[in-house]
Amino acid sequence: MPAELTSVKNPLLKDVRRAIARGGLTSDGCCIAETFHLLEEAIRSECAIQTVIASESVRATVERRVGGLRNLNIIRVPDTLYAEISATESGQGVMALVKPPAWQLDQLVRGNPLLVILDGIQDPGNAGAIVRAAEAFGASGVIFAKGSVSPYNPKAIRASAGSLFRVPLVAALDPSLAIAAVSQRKIELYAAMPRAPISLSDADLSRKCAFVIGSEGRGVSALWSDSAQGLRIPTSEVESLNAAVAAGILLYESWRQRTRAA
Amino acid sequence: MPAELTSVKNPLLKDVRRAIARGGLTSDGCCIAETFHLLEEAIRSECAIQTVIASESVRATVERRVGGLRNLNIIRVPDTLYAEISATESGQGVMALVKPPAWQLDQLVRGNPLLVILDGIQDPGNAGAIVRAAEAFGASGVIFAKGSVSPYNPKAIRASAGSLFRVPLVAALDPSLAIAAVSQRKIELYAAMPRAPISLSDADLSRKCAFVIGSEGRGVSALWSDSAQGLRIPTSEVESLNAAVAAGILLYESWRQRTRAA
Repeated sequence: MPAELTSVKNPLLKDVRRAIARGGLTSDGCCIAETFHLLEEAIRSECAIQTVIASESVRATVERRVGGLRNLNIIRVPDTLYAEISATESGQGVMALVKPPAWQLDQLVRGNPLLVILDGIQDPGNAGAIVRAAEAFGASGVIFAKGSVSPYNPKAIRASAGSLFRVPLVAALDPSLAIAAVSQRKIELYAAMPRAPISLSDADLSRKCAFVIGSEGRGVSALWSDSAQGLRIPTSEVESLNAAVAAGILLYESWRQRTRAA
Repeated sequence: MPAELTSVKNPLLKDVRRAIARGGLTSDGCCIAETFHLLEEAIRSECAIQTVIASESVRATVERRVGGLRNLNIIRVPDTLYAEISATESGQGVMALVKPPAWQLDQLVRGNPLLVILDGIQDPGNAGAIVRAAEAFGASGVIFAKGSVSPYNPKAIRASAGSLFRVPLVAALDPSLAIAAVSQRKIELYAAMPRAPISLSDADLSRKCAFVIGSEGRGVSALWSDSAQGLRIPTSEVESLNAAVAAGILLYESWRQRTRAA
């Protein structure tokens, strides 16, 4: 029988609301994974699940689907209270507080690295879609450079469809540390830029490489473009693509070259 | 000197609010293009601009940037009123009411067609990013099948970054009409599906082709998958990609094959 919380002033619920409003972690370092799908992804992952918050009307479904698993700490709240704290209208009445894995930069650059570096990406939906594509195409890791949205923004977690629990990533990294790590390991650093001289089809992406994806508004910042080779996705006319679409194409092309070469 | 509207009950402003709330067109068939960038894209396009609504604080900027062009009908509103009607917090205080081009299905399938078909896509950001990628990779058109978000949703227009004013598209099309048109013109119909037998790298996309992109939640619907060949984007593990990322990769691969063949 799960515990019930009925007050929005309960410290746990206040903490959850604050994390959602800030688009980040709770004070315990948990990220908020809303929907049944993400709850199940969290269970399948190695991540610790601190608490599951279920609205009254889906409580039976929650217990049927996950109640028998591990020793899940399930808390139920009235529907109206759930709606007040939820990050999304389509949250399905269930959220898990999940400890995301802690990665070291070293773990992102092992083997024959394929890195994605987010340079100021603000849209959590784009960030999450990039993490998802990174997993799909076997990237070794994703770096969220300082100034980018938090990977633990609940909307980014939703958009990653669970990849965020598995893909090695580092958040809020100082760009100079990332540039040093990439350069020290002789990883080719490419910045996706509309009018760059090198076309994607001419780059050898089977070697160690890292892609810098600039923000939606202003593109790749000078700090990165000064340290990187510009790489152009060949297009007909449009100046730039959506950031997640661009990252997906770079990763697909890398995967295509790497599996063909193998 | 632009006219000033000060009441939220003004019929034009009420109409704009309704269009934004519904995610569609005004009663006059105008779409709402917010931000300076989209205003400028609209001006560069062939589309008629019915009205420009500028908040008081950006009025001088609006007049400097576009006041001398054509006979733009600029209406200014107090900032607080603008904030009440705006679709977005980052609308920059300016929106244009733009008549989008009216396309016939025939115009989407001319020459050596490369079509994208949205099958129930709900996220306006994804829809707009797909239209943008369609233009970037020389697609002949985009079909929004009935049940998909409106291409004229203000957020879709934002995400398209202006491509929506140029790419031939048809909204709310009955799937049976689309299937008939594709079949009659002997266009290869592919449905993007995670476990389909045909891999993207094995398909000949230099021929006439159309890609069905399913909705974020449930994928390609039976109606479409029954009429199409399944096409798989080769990935390592993840079951599916973000809809816009998947569409972007299909379009990139088509463009790659078509320009290499040329």
